[in-house]
Amino acid sequence: MPESGTTLYVCTTCRREGDDPEGPRAGARLHAELARQAEDREGAGLRIEPVECLSVCKRPCTVAVASPGRWTYVYGDLDPEAAATTILDGLKSYDGTPDGIVPWRERPKEFRTCVIARIPPFPPIPEAAE
Amino acid sequence: MPESGTTLYVCTTCRREGDDPEGPRAGARLHAELARQAEDREGAGLRIEPVECLSVCKRPCTVAVASPGRWTYVYGDLDPEAAATTILDGLKSYDGTPDGIVPWRERPKEFRTCVIARIPPFPPIPEAAE
Repeated sequence: MPESGTTLYVCTTCRREGDDPEGPRAGARLHAELARQAEDREGAGLRIEPVECLSVCKRPCTVAVASPGRWTYVYGDLDPEAAATTILDGLKSYDGTPDGIVPWRERPKEFRTCVIARIPPFPPIPEAAE
Repeated sequence: MPESGTTLYVCTTCRREGDDPEGPRAGARLHAELARQAEDREGAGLRIEPVECLSVCKRPCTVAVASPGRWTYVYGDLDPEAAATTILDGLKSYDGTPDGIVPWRERPKEFRTCVIARIPPFPPIPEAAE
């Protein structure tokens, strides 16, 4: 599979109730789990970037996905232990679309209910010359 | 002033309580007011794009700002009648930064309290070769 050019940003500052104050934060745990699982998936070509804050502090954990020519999506309310598989499955569907818009029925449940925001492809795709 | 390369996306689908069901929606009104005021500001070089939905439906009105090499910000809870001036002032500060991060004290109040999310510069800026 070719490089998808997709970047997954993971907020590593996100805390969750019940986090061990001595241990890594929920966001950092989610990032570690995503990195571990992505290694096991051959040829995903996904770039996973830790980010200090995505400013969605009231709905941890939080990730954002961006890709050239595709809509950017921000997701919140993600479970640091359980969400990694769902996120990577969802990104596979995302990479399978030309514009990043996965048909509603094909989206994992978390990707339906946990959307924080979406932003059009940037930079804007130049329109075909007439 | 050179073109800033900044795009302001305005959700024109956003409704607000009290909107006249026969009239334009709150988001469409905000878009019209932004376009009108931007015309009066010489050389702002800002591109203002109406968007059908930014998926921040619970916190209307909503806009997103993106610029090459700068963080993308999404804002919500914006008043369709009063927010246009503040948004354009805030974008002037944004354009004055190298990375889109305006120092906290210099941000308009709405830009402090109404952040829905922020996303790192995309595509990622290549690191300087060592």
